[in-house]
Amino acid sequence: VITCRAAIAWTANAPLSIEEVEVDPPKPGEVRIKIVSSGLCGTDKHILEGKDKVPLPAILGHEGTGIVESIGEGVTTVQPGDKVLIFLLPECGECRFCLHPKGNMCVKENILSPTGLMLDGTSRFTCRGRKIYLYGTSTFTEYTVVHEIAVGKIDAAAPLDKVCIMSCAVPTGFGVVFNTARVTPGSTCVIFGLGGIGSAVVMGCKASGASRIIGVDIIEDKFPWARALGVTDCLNPQNLKRPVQEVVVEMTGGGADFAFEAVGLTDTMVAAFESCHVSYGVCVIIGVAPSAAKLSFDPLMLLPGRTLKGATLGEYKTRSCIPKLVTDYMQRKFNTDSLITHQFPFEKINKAFELFRSEHCHAYVYVPA
Amino acid sequence: VITCRAAIAWTANAPLSIEEVEVDPPKPGEVRIKIVSSGLCGTDKHILEGKDKVPLPAILGHEGTGIVESIGEGVTTVQPGDKVLIFLLPECGECRFCLHPKGNMCVKENILSPTGLMLDGTSRFTCRGRKIYLYGTSTFTEYTVVHEIAVGKIDAAAPLDKVCIMSCAVPTGFGVVFNTARVTPGSTCVIFGLGGIGSAVVMGCKASGASRIIGVDIIEDKFPWARALGVTDCLNPQNLKRPVQEVVVEMTGGGADFAFEAVGLTDTMVAAFESCHVSYGVCVIIGVAPSAAKLSFDPLMLLPGRTLKGATLGEYKTRSCIPKLVTDYMQRKFNTDSLITHQFPFEKINKAFELFRSEHCHAYVYVPA
Repeated sequence: VITCRAAIAWTANAPLSIEEVEVDPPKPGEVRIKIVSSGLCGTDKHILEGKDKVPLPAILGHEGTGIVESIGEGVTTVQPGDKVLIFLLPECGECRFCLHPKGNMCVKENILSPTGLMLDGTSRFTCRGRKIYLYGTSTFTEYTVVHEIAVGKIDAAAPLDKVCIMSCAVPTGFGVVFNTARVTPGSTCVIFGLGGIGSAVVMGCKASGASRIIGVDIIEDKFPWARALGVTDCLNPQNLKRPVQEVVVEMTGGGADFAFEAVGLTDTMVAAFESCHVSYGVCVIIGVAPSAAKLSFDPLMLLPGRTLKGATLGEYKTRSCIPKLVTDYMQRKFNTDSLITHQFPFEKINKAFELFRSEHCHAYVYVPA
Repeated sequence: VITCRAAIAWTANAPLSIEEVEVDPPKPGEVRIKIVSSGLCGTDKHILEGKDKVPLPAILGHEGTGIVESIGEGVTTVQPGDKVLIFLLPECGECRFCLHPKGNMCVKENILSPTGLMLDGTSRFTCRGRKIYLYGTSTFTEYTVVHEIAVGKIDAAAPLDKVCIMSCAVPTGFGVVFNTARVTPGSTCVIFGLGGIGSAVVMGCKASGASRIIGVDIIEDKFPWARALGVTDCLNPQNLKRPVQEVVVEMTGGGADFAFEAVGLTDTMVAAFESCHVSYGVCVIIGVAPSAAKLSFDPLMLLPGRTLKGATLGEYKTRSCIPKLVTDYMQRKFNTDSLITHQFPFEKINKAFELFRSEHCHAYVYVPA
């Protein structure tokens, strides 16, 4: 048992509480990891705001990198000292989902109704004598335990403070562009939400040769940064006299070829869908809507040929595909460093969330060694 | 001006009335056609039931074949005597939609809010001194006038009483399989609604090598016929103890690869969407829902990777692509004759609609020469 610090969400609508926790050793098929860095994701924010219901008290965080500290019985693909990415979606490699050429929803994880427990129905975290639930991969801690199938070994030279976003934001943003929408050269794209994931989408669209990239956000501070990443036109729906989708349709002579929703609200999902071209537009929903929200629209929206899709982690099969993104990064095939706008020491995680709620950041929490 | 018989929809919720009408000569860019055969489509039925609002009184019908009787000034691609298919969607070949590699929503027609008039804002039909609106291509008449861009010349030897369904039902059904969903060999498909279009979808799925084809309908009389076309499992939702989508998900070990909705109700659209695989399922909406209906679902349905698409006329660019289907039919590459279950003389069109509402038919109305 390791004793270390972790940020605990005791209830929603309250700051995280940094506490001393006990982290059990890994059971068979599990890996204990010293977390080196972790990103903040909108999903964590939604949980803290009470919009997504998950079992609490829990240790949140699911975008992390670290170094394997110890391994459980039967673990063969990583060993102590390995640098790893930790994935919200495991890849068992054996289930129908893993064996299918498309999709990445391994049966070993149900992201739609998380149990807050390991596959054996227990937790590895205790705080003041109380069991603490996990969420995703629980990276807001100095040590975590995850299943071997949720871990991907990466290049020993990889800078963990830079590549932690390859665990969620980057594959999510790149994947919806390359795997889900398959953005084409010369196309027009619109991205709702210019946070970490939306910015990764912008980078993917630019890399795909999109000739026009429209960014939509209500925080105008993000606009100069978004332009630097490749956005050609910025829209703040709060400053428009008409619904933003009408403006996008007019700007694009009938609608964007590709629309992406990286906010997580049903209103912006409908706006994104209506922004894409009536006949050949493809709209990809990336954001996670609040629990029990309903997406509602006239089905005639679909009839002329529109496509509405969703994706988690950009449809990448995690262990098989995402470590290669780190290799590509190391070979300078792309540079995502600019997506990391801020860094905080672990004890400032609440300050990071405050900033995340207010500003143009994919806030980045660094857990000191 | 030609005087002939036409079936007029004076109001919704009333039988069609066979009347003598005057059909004006074609204006520039228009073609007057002697209708030889016309199919009944669900869209016509919905209008007659008051579910879809279009300007009335009108001559309905949009699935037809005929022989060009006369041409207006400037018409160059057909001449009197040519056998033609008549399309609900024109293809001007010049607009952004026609020039785009995908999609078929030519700007010269707005199927979502039909005006009931030709492009110049007038009608070619008069009955008892009153102007009669057109709907689509107005094929429930002995003569009609349509734009040249809505007409496709076909093989002079084509049997018009057999190929009229190539104007709508066959391309709609084949196209959603081949162009929209791209059904793969060995896949599992589910089709909601086993009418004319649903049956064409079944034929397409079978031709694509689907290994399991589940047909869903509340009229069990259709089942033997559906099985003969390729359906492997038939489900009547009214005889199930659980929602049909739950049964399909269980039967298929997680959901069908491809789901098609060919009914036109939002409830069956949601059922079809929920029937397809959570991660890689593709659901295509073909049916036209009643005016002002809302499709409503939890957006988390999309997140794991599902795709929801729509298509009109199976995404075929009409003039460029659909006449080739007739050529393929003539070369016996496929045989759609079994989709025509009944034939009626023109004056029995109301009887045909009665049958259409009640039984397993893609009722087929023959207009005698």
